[in-house]
Amino acid sequence: MANILILGAGVMGTALAVPASDNGHAVVLSGTPLDDAVVARMQAPGGTHPKLDAPLPGTVRVIADAALTAEDTDKADLIVVGVSSPGITWAVDRLNELLRRETTVAFVTKGLDRRDGAVVTFAETVPERINRLGTFIGIGGPCIARELALRLPTASVYAARNEAAAKRAAALFRTPYYRLAVSDDLTGVEACAALKNFFAIGVSAMQTRYPDALRADGQSKNPTAAAFTQAVHEMAMLCEMVGGARSTAFDLAGLGDLHVTVGGGRNSRLGHSLGRKRNVEEAMTQELANETVEGIDTARVVASLLHGMGRDSVRFPLTKAIIDAVLGKTLFEFDFEKLYLPANAG
Amino acid sequence: MANILILGAGVMGTALAVPASDNGHAVVLSGTPLDDAVVARMQAPGGTHPKLDAPLPGTVRVIADAALTAEDTDKADLIVVGVSSPGITWAVDRLNELLRRETTVAFVTKGLDRRDGAVVTFAETVPERINRLGTFIGIGGPCIARELALRLPTASVYAARNEAAAKRAAALFRTPYYRLAVSDDLTGVEACAALKNFFAIGVSAMQTRYPDALRADGQSKNPTAAAFTQAVHEMAMLCEMVGGARSTAFDLAGLGDLHVTVGGGRNSRLGHSLGRKRNVEEAMTQELANETVEGIDTARVVASLLHGMGRDSVRFPLTKAIIDAVLGKTLFEFDFEKLYLPANAG
Repeated sequence: MANILILGAGVMGTALAVPASDNGHAVVLSGTPLDDAVVARMQAPGGTHPKLDAPLPGTVRVIADAALTAEDTDKADLIVVGVSSPGITWAVDRLNELLRRETTVAFVTKGLDRRDGAVVTFAETVPERINRLGTFIGIGGPCIARELALRLPTASVYAARNEAAAKRAAALFRTPYYRLAVSDDLTGVEACAALKNFFAIGVSAMQTRYPDALRADGQSKNPTAAAFTQAVHEMAMLCEMVGGARSTAFDLAGLGDLHVTVGGGRNSRLGHSLGRKRNVEEAMTQELANETVEGIDTARVVASLLHGMGRDSVRFPLTKAIIDAVLGKTLFEFDFEKLYLPANAG
Repeated sequence: MANILILGAGVMGTALAVPASDNGHAVVLSGTPLDDAVVARMQAPGGTHPKLDAPLPGTVRVIADAALTAEDTDKADLIVVGVSSPGITWAVDRLNELLRRETTVAFVTKGLDRRDGAVVTFAETVPERINRLGTFIGIGGPCIARELALRLPTASVYAARNEAAAKRAAALFRTPYYRLAVSDDLTGVEACAALKNFFAIGVSAMQTRYPDALRADGQSKNPTAAAFTQAVHEMAMLCEMVGGARSTAFDLAGLGDLHVTVGGGRNSRLGHSLGRKRNVEEAMTQELANETVEGIDTARVVASLLHGMGRDSVRFPLTKAIIDAVLGKTLFEFDFEKLYLPANAG
């Protein structure tokens, strides 16, 4: 039995308490200051997270941020940071207040950053900000938190530069329904986890861009399949540009997570609006008012990657179409004549 | 302008007449003896193929098999064979009757064969049976014929051992809506084109195996995304075993075509039935009575690949689950505990 502390009672942090608790570990789920209402609700008898369907196992101890102490972090064999990317600075500060010894921390938080003119992942920028970080673990792969909390079969990947550390972390969470690969391509897993939100916008736009009234879902299929394939290949090239391995884009953290992200969630809803020829301002002030669409932040960073790439940017027609639409320059238009098919050039 | 002869008035052969004709080529679409009624229907003014929505361009000459002569094949710069796999022997015989000079032939027909105890693609077995074959071109990638005929954006790949020949063929068909890559991995494109039907059964089964009543389509997403990723990786390994390149499975002919095949067509419908815990006999005598499901034929050949693989077959848990269900041994059950995640083994 291990002691696991989860920081942040968002859907993913909360869902991870389920396999950890099913494995017999002592789990503490501690909300952020923004989670107080959610924590109170889960502390009530039979209480559920508002975005999950089932109550947590009774063995999970749910506490508010105010109740979290250094005794909790002292005991923890592993800490999970379950905040979304805008919460990363809060999480870093809180860890620096609490940690009194080197501790392994697994992050579900994903993002791309700029540093010294280069684009890097949180795996590059976050560790140096935490004073007593043992190993940085990144969690990626196709996982809708609600389904994991319902114990539906789910595959994910735990990544660390030190693969043995990733294996130890995965062993704490792996159950018959939560199947975990491990990887030493931490940067690649982090990059893909951020990029999949961005590409989900473009692939989802293609789902609505060419309607097919004869189908139950109203969507034609050839354009989406072409865009999905294109997205995976452009993701692989971008992943490599930020220091990850191409192969990671062709695995759970890349094409797997893109598959689950297209068709559900806020990035996909933005894509569907763009595909219906609405512009990003309309979408973000109307059907997505007050929502955070993580792929938009990623678009800003990816735009800086593409900028100055020169002629090479011809290899990224889908990336460019998404950036142009999401940063408000044009309506979404992925010109199939620009589809980059390397062997074509003759 | 070139002369293009299409042999077989099935949906794919007929649909290919659209981009060829849009490019200004002289196109003859010749039915098989089984296509006489379809041909008569298309020859009537404004007549359409029964499974396509729009009439062909008026410049396409549609003829019955009885009207096809060696003068037509003499003139053809390229012949497309558009029959399905059970029609391949007829097509080979007809070409041997008609061809008086070496001619390039592009095949949409896909299949795996056994030869001398090994599993091979039609690219290995068909050319030696045609006396005056110039270049064998294989056509793969995510293409629902009806959408191509409607000129919806579609990406595909034309493959030949001689890449220059593939480029020449692709140049005849490429239009603004029909974007063509070329490849010299003919065996890989042929293998993936057959294997995608097989794997579409398993991924589609996962769509119905774990229902989610809260979603519009009733499907949970994590199990399907995991199975899709697994399918692509097992396809890559099988592709390599029959002599193709792994990378082909990660491109249009592999993951792209699998994407379009899951959720539509007969292989997917069989998968949906299996996912609902019906056995293959029930499905094939009831909801799929009198239908040909190509993935079942592929399953028989893939079973012989797996047989005798020994311990290595542990790398193919999805392949094995599909074979067991499709060949009637068990209900479909993809045990996530058997998910093969190489780096796991510790």
